Amino acid sequence: MEYMFTMLESALNEIKPVSHAWLEKAKQRLDNLTKPRDSLGRLEEIAARVVAIRENESPSIEKKDVFIFAGDHGVTSEGVSAYPQEVTGLMVRNFLAGGAAINALAHSAGASVSVIDIGMMEDLENAEGLIKKNVKRGTGNVAKGPAMTHEQAEMGICVGIEVAEEACKRGASIIATGEMGIGNTTPSSAILSALLPAEVIDVTGRGTGLDDEGLRHKIKVIEKALKVNRTSLGDPISTLAAIGGLEIAGICGMCLACAARRVVVIVDGFISSAGALVAMRLNPAVKDYLFFSHKSVEKGHGAFFDKEGLHPILDLGLRLGEGTGAALAIYTIESSLKVYNEMATFEEVGIKPGA
Amino acid sequence: MEYMFTMLESALNEIKPVSHAWLEKAKQRLDNLTKPRDSLGRLEEIAARVVAIRENESPSIEKKDVFIFAGDHGVTSEGVSAYPQEVTGLMVRNFLAGGAAINALAHSAGASVSVIDIGMMEDLENAEGLIKKNVKRGTGNVAKGPAMTHEQAEMGICVGIEVAEEACKRGASIIATGEMGIGNTTPSSAILSALLPAEVIDVTGRGTGLDDEGLRHKIKVIEKALKVNRTSLGDPISTLAAIGGLEIAGICGMCLACAARRVVVIVDGFISSAGALVAMRLNPAVKDYLFFSHKSVEKGHGAFFDKEGLHPILDLGLRLGEGTGAALAIYTIESSLKVYNEMATFEEVGIKPGA
Repeated sequence: MEYMFTMLESALNEIKPVSHAWLEKAKQRLDNLTKPRDSLGRLEEIAARVVAIRENESPSIEKKDVFIFAGDHGVTSEGVSAYPQEVTGLMVRNFLAGGAAINALAHSAGASVSVIDIGMMEDLENAEGLIKKNVKRGTGNVAKGPAMTHEQAEMGICVGIEVAEEACKRGASIIATGEMGIGNTTPSSAILSALLPAEVIDVTGRGTGLDDEGLRHKIKVIEKALKVNRTSLGDPISTLAAIGGLEIAGICGMCLACAARRVVVIVDGFISSAGALVAMRLNPAVKDYLFFSHKSVEKGHGAFFDKEGLHPILDLGLRLGEGTGAALAIYTIESSLKVYNEMATFEEVGIKPGA
Repeated sequence: MEYMFTMLESALNEIKPVSHAWLEKAKQRLDNLTKPRDSLGRLEEIAARVVAIRENESPSIEKKDVFIFAGDHGVTSEGVSAYPQEVTGLMVRNFLAGGAAINALAHSAGASVSVIDIGMMEDLENAEGLIKKNVKRGTGNVAKGPAMTHEQAEMGICVGIEVAEEACKRGASIIATGEMGIGNTTPSSAILSALLPAEVIDVTGRGTGLDDEGLRHKIKVIEKALKVNRTSLGDPISTLAAIGGLEIAGICGMCLACAARRVVVIVDGFISSAGALVAMRLNPAVKDYLFFSHKSVEKGHGAFFDKEGLHPILDLGLRLGEGTGAALAIYTIESSLKVYNEMATFEEVGIKPGA
């Protein structure tokens, strides 16, 4: 525990906002490239931020890693998901075998896929390639009590930090978050409701496919979870422990460690955003290192972006998770750097910069 | 002329709507893949349409080509652009030398870039690699008369058909449109106003960077162009001839030829959309073969999508043209096919499909 506390504490202390001088330097180069000023919109903004994060005048993307944190949720016993809990394990096997959407999209992006058992119910003993960091075999039912202890939440965050630090040491330039866990939109909505804050109804959606009645029931379950756990809601880690999940904790830790090491993080969808939000509440400067890949159709993701003043890169009607949106957005970030690194300047081609 | 007429006529006759049976077949496969139904949103819709266009159960993307049609516009003498006309030639040299944004983004996409002089003022005699198909050295000033003759507009369309057919013969699986031409948002807005139809003010924006006064002036110039040429506005080709431009004609022809040959077309931004609109007015089934890459910040692009019931893939605040948005969207289309071709089915992993 002492070691863990130091790990989290030191990540939090090392995070600094990105340098304005570097942002300015990047903008100066972008304004000299052969295009009307700002005409590449978000690509210019993304490139400038990557330059400032890396503090490198010609940043390149070498190694791209997608990390999928897998966990189970006691709250599934309340009937909040269209799929049974066993699907978490089946899908983790599918990731390891290369047959899931994230495998196809990571392949497309030239990124590796790693899966971490951070809180799965099932022990996939012989699953080759699975990173085994299980903190707890499934969280408690948040409608009846806390998801986990404060210590377990910290352990979950530290798993994320550890995995991210190892990836950084192996030379990762971009880290993309992902998750798997039947029922995990429920704790994510609860986290958003508590930490944004927002009304439950405004941040709760259909997950993998609830009907109207299922959605009404899910809202009631989340309201109950917030009520039952009300005395534990306050600081970000206590909130995470009370109503969150372990994959959310892992993603939080990953965001913290990458920000501390000045590595670009691409946040996937709704559940990953809940993890990112916990990290942002622990240290607001984390935001400078995060790129939100896409706007999910899951209700509440829009409210999250609006409240936090964030702008996702893509809007493709995704609601799958796993890291699929993050894997897709890697390309946008790489392309912005191609523009930054490869374009000619006005001077080089003999044009006077216009308006 | 006889040959040309046949070329256009036969492209128009060969275009058929994509097959519903193929769309259904694709949707069936997508619904069996290991993900909640429709959870990959636009990716699923894109993959299904590509399968139906290609009439191939496992379509792959082999060769990707970006074509930039370059033309000049007499209307620049009215002061409708922030850049002088000479920039068209300078930027074409920049494309050929590989220093422009489109070169960086095509590189990122693994696509080739070809530049066609379809209507440039300047004769770049010794420009290596330039495809020389000049129909007219700059259009007439549309504020005072027609941009070109009906015959020249047809010739422009046929240049696009010819270039696309050659690319298809060489094995292109995706063709992306692009353009360069100082002043070309003006004829594009005029075309949109005439063919959508829409009020000039609703489809006219700042182009490469006009200020408020410049924009008001541009609107007046376009209104004048529509008035001066009013007797020629009617069928799509007469409208194109009266108030359009040659790069717009080329893009129109490219859309027609690709639709006739069942090849995916990615339409770039505002100017490319004007070319696509002329093609769609010549044969509404062309729409089935077009993917609109992105929503430009140029005012009027949104009105175009709304009126035509179209949904662009990306929204990255671009307003550069050249084919930059189309080059970026190639990746989304390729990724959708990776998902379609590579994912495991529910049966393969032992999960019952959920909601």
